Amino acid sequence: MKLGAIEAGGTKFVLAIGNERGELYEKISIPTKTPEETLSEALAFFQGKGIEALGVGAFGPLELNKDKDNYGFITSTPKPHWANIDLLGILQRGLSVPVALATDVSGAALGEVRFGDYKEEHTLLYITVGTGIGGGYTIAGKIHNGMLHPEMGHLLVHRHPKDSFEGLCPYHKSCLEGMASGPANEARTGMKGVDIPEDHESFDFIASYMADALMSYILTLSPTKIVLGGGVMGRTYMLPKIRQLLAERMNGYLKTPQMDDLTHYIVTPSLGVESGIKGALALAMDAL
Amino acid sequence: MKLGAIEAGGTKFVLAIGNERGELYEKISIPTKTPEETLSEALAFFQGKGIEALGVGAFGPLELNKDKDNYGFITSTPKPHWANIDLLGILQRGLSVPVALATDVSGAALGEVRFGDYKEEHTLLYITVGTGIGGGYTIAGKIHNGMLHPEMGHLLVHRHPKDSFEGLCPYHKSCLEGMASGPANEARTGMKGVDIPEDHESFDFIASYMADALMSYILTLSPTKIVLGGGVMGRTYMLPKIRQLLAERMNGYLKTPQMDDLTHYIVTPSLGVESGIKGALALAMDAL
Repeated sequence: MKLGAIEAGGTKFVLAIGNERGELYEKISIPTKTPEETLSEALAFFQGKGIEALGVGAFGPLELNKDKDNYGFITSTPKPHWANIDLLGILQRGLSVPVALATDVSGAALGEVRFGDYKEEHTLLYITVGTGIGGGYTIAGKIHNGMLHPEMGHLLVHRHPKDSFEGLCPYHKSCLEGMASGPANEARTGMKGVDIPEDHESFDFIASYMADALMSYILTLSPTKIVLGGGVMGRTYMLPKIRQLLAERMNGYLKTPQMDDLTHYIVTPSLGVESGIKGALALAMDAL
Repeated sequence: MKLGAIEAGGTKFVLAIGNERGELYEKISIPTKTPEETLSEALAFFQGKGIEALGVGAFGPLELNKDKDNYGFITSTPKPHWANIDLLGILQRGLSVPVALATDVSGAALGEVRFGDYKEEHTLLYITVGTGIGGGYTIAGKIHNGMLHPEMGHLLVHRHPKDSFEGLCPYHKSCLEGMASGPANEARTGMKGVDIPEDHESFDFIASYMADALMSYILTLSPTKIVLGGGVMGRTYMLPKIRQLLAERMNGYLKTPQMDDLTHYIVTPSLGVESGIKGALALAMDAL
């Protein structure tokens, strides 16, 4: 079976052809320009390749309620040209195959639970910390959405006492994304992300904010596994810090095998940078 | 069909007989003493009444993982005599009918979505604020549990600048339950709950903590409806305060019909004090 997959990000689109086992035959990356340019390129990539369905994990916010007139649209994004774009419709009309859409990070969660090392997990939380911060959650191998997809990046966190950075979020200033995203730390330190040294105190701040947020997620969702992805979490020396601060905050409140073994509870993506594109393959399967 | 229902609380057990439409034929309340005394009384109430199944919403923490040896137990509760009690097993052996168990507040969420005004809600969050604070969440009419049932009462909140109360939670001091439960406010004010006047500033503090927590729940779970129950929320003049503070914190970030109409999004229980016992009837149905 040939399936199409798109990971639609704010800076690049990853396009791939793969199969129902999560194997990728072909994968390319194109820059995100205007919707006209980028979606035309995407359609051209897939046309004539005989895909049976397409899965798309995209930046948002997205309208995922099928009862709405603008179902499948990117809605109120601040990204120039991309607000109110009928992403699902344009792709479906262009390719004449079933198309399924989810947020990029819900797609990544789905990729990990369908094709990664975490197939047995009843409930999996995937958090990405990079240009933005977002979370996706799967239950029994299906993405959870409610009135909207989750918007977990915007939780309020407790300011680290040594951190005077005011925060970057245009809505909430000092929420998690406003304080712990890649751009937030570049603004805080005045350095490019790659230039910030490993022992910079800002990573203690970020670990603290992540521990705050993880405590909320765990108490609210009770995931059986938590995967931390994205560029900032690629600094894997942060994981032990985050786990330690989380344990301190929880203070033994939840008595579960997972909380007793945070090294195996809070982990890096088993699919590396391919969680999202493989999750899009899983979405394509679900579209059939 | 005759079904049994128990709402097992820390101070009283509500016992009822009802049917699959959520109608109650008979309901009594007994004080929570030792497990031996209280469970014997409960068994005596149901015996000979011809119930086909029993549903139980209980204080916790509970072990709800069927793979565990102590499935159906109340586990590490600080309540004297009740830790490591085989609640499900004792009731099942005593009555020889199928028994289903959930947390009290998950049961209340289920009651609202099955038998209350919120049958259409895809995802319903029920938060109780009383002696303790807890939350239950239903998706498509089923209770959500993960590695454990949710423990939403223990989210970290931001201290109100005028509130010097240190907090009551033995694990986290100033978490939501530590700051906003009935006992927390009695300790803060030095007054019995019923004696605290409506215009006491402590209710502004509690509204602020509830708004903090609701923001986290909404961003994480994205419920289509939120029901606030329990004794403290029985002070219904607090709801407008909570909605207003939540709107201020969110600052227009989520654009949904629900967020545009918080009066109908954040509501009181449609079943009044019977959400829990009627939810236990729904659990009994699911046990069959």
